Amino acid sequence: MKKLAGRLKTGLKPGRYKHTQGVVHTAGELARRFRVSVRRCQLAAWLHDCGKALGPAEAKRLLKRSGADRSERAAPGLWHAAVGAWMAEHEFGIKDAEVLRAIRIHSTGAPGMTRLQKIIFVADYVEPGRPPWPELKRLRPLALEDLDAAFFEVLRHKIIELLKRGRQVHPRSLAAYHEAIQ
Amino acid sequence: MKKLAGRLKTGLKPGRYKHTQGVVHTAGELARRFRVSVRRCQLAAWLHDCGKALGPAEAKRLLKRSGADRSERAAPGLWHAAVGAWMAEHEFGIKDAEVLRAIRIHSTGAPGMTRLQKIIFVADYVEPGRPPWPELKRLRPLALEDLDAAFFEVLRHKIIELLKRGRQVHPRSLAAYHEAIQ
Repeated sequence: MKKLAGRLKTGLKPGRYKHTQGVVHTAGELARRFRVSVRRCQLAAWLHDCGKALGPAEAKRLLKRSGADRSERAAPGLWHAAVGAWMAEHEFGIKDAEVLRAIRIHSTGAPGMTRLQKIIFVADYVEPGRPPWPELKRLRPLALEDLDAAFFEVLRHKIIELLKRGRQVHPRSLAAYHEAIQ
Repeated sequence: MKKLAGRLKTGLKPGRYKHTQGVVHTAGELARRFRVSVRRCQLAAWLHDCGKALGPAEAKRLLKRSGADRSERAAPGLWHAAVGAWMAEHEFGIKDAEVLRAIRIHSTGAPGMTRLQKIIFVADYVEPGRPPWPELKRLRPLALEDLDAAFFEVLRHKIIELLKRGRQVHPRSLAAYHEAIQ
């Protein structure tokens, strides 16, 4: 994991690397709390934003190869996740399908997520370095108490923020929301 | 139209009938402003909530016949729109497909809406009898100025309210939103 951290420190901008460290920290906490493999959670956390090492032009070039769907291709904010999952597999040699999927869906969420995948999704949003938005005070303790509830709150908050800004909402985010309210 | 109003006055609860009158009034204003047939707009407005004349059990019984899709069947709040379009056709003898569709999608919105259909969607939300929510002050004048902008604002507001309440969002609402932000 140390070698991995070193490669990411070189590839990512300092702020992004610091965020990644925060996600690794929070993902570790949540993994211990919810009895998920700390090693696999932190592997996914280290790599979740590895696609951000690329500039937009490079990311765009890799999009097709990454298997990005139409909605991912249409939303530049999602390119790093699709491309990142591809890079994790082909440049970092990760074979763990659950980890690769966690990277792919860490921004949008998706129906049928595993605990590991929910941990990455939530940790990405509540890690200690995130600028303090009002709900965060409530969400941080909630995440350690009830992973599904925290996942739902973060997901809903993200969709509402996208709507307020007039941005695309990936259909799988809405599908994950509908699964959660069942 | 007078005969129609009489039938609806008998079928609907007083508050619902008053709301319908408000929608007819606002739809007429918007139709004149945006050069859409006032007669057809007001016909759709009179009938938009005709499905509310049924109790939930009756509405449920008619759902299948009305061609309601899976998401409509799953959301009791949408039954009156699907069933209402069916009643407009088969009980009120309306043949105008654009009007029938306006009734069907007046709650959810949909991609590819005509001006008439947007007028019903918007009028339903900004008619004078609606309890004054903060945004309404801004939306009423906007509706008379820019129908597409008002449609987008009402649609987005409705989706956000559903999310805040943990209710279903019909996929065609999200599709309409995505069409509007293009």
